[in-house]
This record gives sequence, structure tokens and C-alpha cells, in this order.
Amino acid sequence: MSSPVEPGDPVQPVVDLLGVLSYAELTAFDRLAEDARLAPTLEGRSALARMAAAEIAHHGRLWARLVELGVSPAAAMAPFVAPLDAFHDSTRAGTWLEGLVKAHVGDGLATDFYREVAAFLPPADRDLVLEVLADPGHADFAVREVRAAIAADRTVAGRLALWARRLVGEALTQSQVVIAERDGLAELIIAGTGSLAGVGELLQRIMAAHTERMRALGLNG
Amino acid sequence: MSSPVEPGDPVQPVVDLLGVLSYAELTAFDRLAEDARLAPTLEGRSALARMAAAEIAHHGRLWARLVELGVSPAAAMAPFVAPLDAFHDSTRAGTWLEGLVKAHVGDGLATDFYREVAAFLPPADRDLVLEVLADPGHADFAVREVRAAIAADRTVAGRLALWARRLVGEALTQSQVVIAERDGLAELIIAGTGSLAGVGELLQRIMAAHTERMRALGLNG
Repeated sequence: MSSPVEPGDPVQPVVDLLGVLSYAELTAFDRLAEDARLAPTLEGRSALARMAAAEIAHHGRLWARLVELGVSPAAAMAPFVAPLDAFHDSTRAGTWLEGLVKAHVGDGLATDFYREVAAFLPPADRDLVLEVLADPGHADFAVREVRAAIAADRTVAGRLALWARRLVGEALTQSQVVIAERDGLAELIIAGTGSLAGVGELLQRIMAAHTERMRALGLNG
Repeated sequence: MSSPVEPGDPVQPVVDLLGVLSYAELTAFDRLAEDARLAPTLEGRSALARMAAAEIAHHGRLWARLVELGVSPAAAMAPFVAPLDAFHDSTRAGTWLEGLVKAHVGDGLATDFYREVAAFLPPADRDLVLEVLADPGHADFAVREVRAAIAADRTVAGRLALWARRLVGEALTQSQVVIAERDGLAELIIAGTGSLAGVGELLQRIMAAHTERMRALGLNG
């Protein structure tokens, strides 16, 4: 694997991106493992537990890459523990369906954002990030379950749409905290997009994909 | 894979053993995922989350074998949900060290028992069970952490030894519930060992291995 980043001389924004992603996968694991216990059937519980295990496989890949770069994975993750924990603590799913919407809508937003940023990374890291961002089958599962629940009870859609809006608000708040504290990440995004107008276009692409996901779930609100 | 058990005609004790193991792996996943959040470091949390993921890989193998046998995995697991949940609810780890001792001592006992029973199964199922019972590195990790904690504070040993005795008591209670309700499993064990004397020897082997594990942890009480 070739990489412009040499061990002992890692570029801080690359380390930041790998660090935040590695911790994000660990928290995604926790959340999926918790939500699995809310499943109404053993089939659903098993499916979510398997998705949690897939997140940990990704976490392990990022961990190994950080070690390869001569960086302590725990140190690389540390700056992101507080904001990611704050996001999850303020958006704890109370029901099986809220958990599925959170996983699909919240992870979808985060994935789109990380994917955009990955485009500005050196090739080896870009490929690794794109690989760990691949969906472990969660999207289809969430869409199927949520649409079935809405078909059975149409009032569910309004409540879940409100929930999704709260998730987006909290996610924006916490991303601002992260970017304000990590200059390197902000510079990487501005340099990569070329200008502030480029940043605006990046955000528009992310919001368009979000709207599409909401529609797929049957949440047009 | 050859097997004397044909799809559509599964032998009930085989289905019972695959079912109880499959649910045991799912609860082991839950417990490791919960205990991961008690970890004092990100390294410890990552290590436990990876072990949880390994349990789910095993769970997936057993699930697939039950499907292959023409059995609903959820139905095969169902009789074991209440006793296994009762065991875990009555032995919820309050600290990181209690979680490690529970995983090592509790899983060790269960693994030894399942391994003994597996010897009486048709070859394909026996091999599968032995494979999913392989330790995903938990033992070394638990021994290292617990011994380090005892070295730092010798009073820890007494408290953890008491905890381990409580675990064994609860495990025995719940195994009796399971075996009393599943005649096939009891018959498989008696037929496999050849006599009640053989059952006694099986239990002696399991208790000897348990004593050895307690010694390795530094818990001789």
C-alpha cells in the first residue's frame, strides 16, 4: 500500500479524520448493540448485532492504519470522544424505530460528510475510509422496517420525522464543535473544495442526499 | 459438509444444543458490549468490542447451520431465552473487573460443558460447535487485567473470588432449569457418558478446569 504519509510523520488532518472515524465506529457499535436489545424479534436482534460487529471490523481497520502511521489510536480518538458522546447522549433512541431512523439518517449524514472529506486525502487513506464507510446492509433493513411500521400506523411517520429533524440539529451542533476545535480538518475541507463556495456546494450535496433518505423511509415531513 | 442429520428431520437434542449456543453467543455479545463501556481506557473498550464482534460471528455460523437443518433459528433459541436472561440479570457486572471475571469464569464453565456435550454429536455439528467455542483471545486479556489489578490492590482478590462463587452458583441453578425442561439434552448426556457415573466424571472434569482458571486469575479463594 503506497501512501504520501510516512510513519513518524503523519499529517494531522489525516490522523484527525481516521481518529474521528475510528471513534465513530466504536460509538456506532455501542448504539447498535443497545438498539439490538429493543428489537421486537430475535431475528431483528440478531440482524442488529451483526451490523454492530461489522462496525467493529471497520474500527479495527482504522486502528491498524493509525498504528501503521506511528500514532496512538487512543490519542487520535481522544479529541472526538466528548462531542460524539454528547451527540449520542442527547439523541438516545427510546424505541426500536427511533433507533433504526437514527442509525439510517444519522449515519447517512455522517457517512456522506466523511466521504466528501476523504476525497481530499492521500490515496491509501482515501481508499481505506471509503471502504470502512460501505454500508453493512443497514440501509435496506432500516427502510424495510420503518416503512412497514408506517404502513401499519400512519401516525408513526409524523413522530419519526420530528425525531429525524432533532437528530440533524444535534448532529450539526456537534460537527461545529469538532470543526471549531480541529483547525486542520477545517483547512482540509476549505483547501479541498477550493473556496467557501465549494464548501457550500458540499453541504448542498449532503443535504440533498439526506432529503432522499428521508423520502425512502417514508418521512417527507 | 456431511451430517447424519438431514434437513427436515433434525434430531431435537442437536437442535437444542445449537439453539442454546446460538442464544448464548447473542447474550455474550450483549454482555461484552455493555462491559466495554466500563473499560477504563479506549484500548480496553476497543478490545472488548472486538471480542463481542467475534461472538456474533459464531452466532451467525450457528444460525446458518440451523437454517440448513430446516429449523427456524429463533424457534430453536426460544426455550433458552428465559433461563439465560435470568442468569445474566442476576449476575450483572458492576465493575470492569467483575465483567472480566464473569466473562472468563462464566464462559469458561459454559464452554467446557458445551464441549463435553459436543463430543456426543454427529461429526459436522460437533466440529461446528468446537469451532465456535474457540476462545477469541478473551482468556489472556482477562487474566492479564485481573492479575494486574490484584497486584495493585490485594483486597481485590477476596471480593472477586466471592463474585466468582456467586456466578458458579447462579450458573448451576440455571443449567438445572434448562436440563429439567429439555429431556433430549439430558438423555444425550446420559447416553453419551454411558451412565450416571459417567455424568459424575464429566462434572468433575468441568470443576477441575474451573479451579485451574480461578488459580490463573489469582483467585484461589
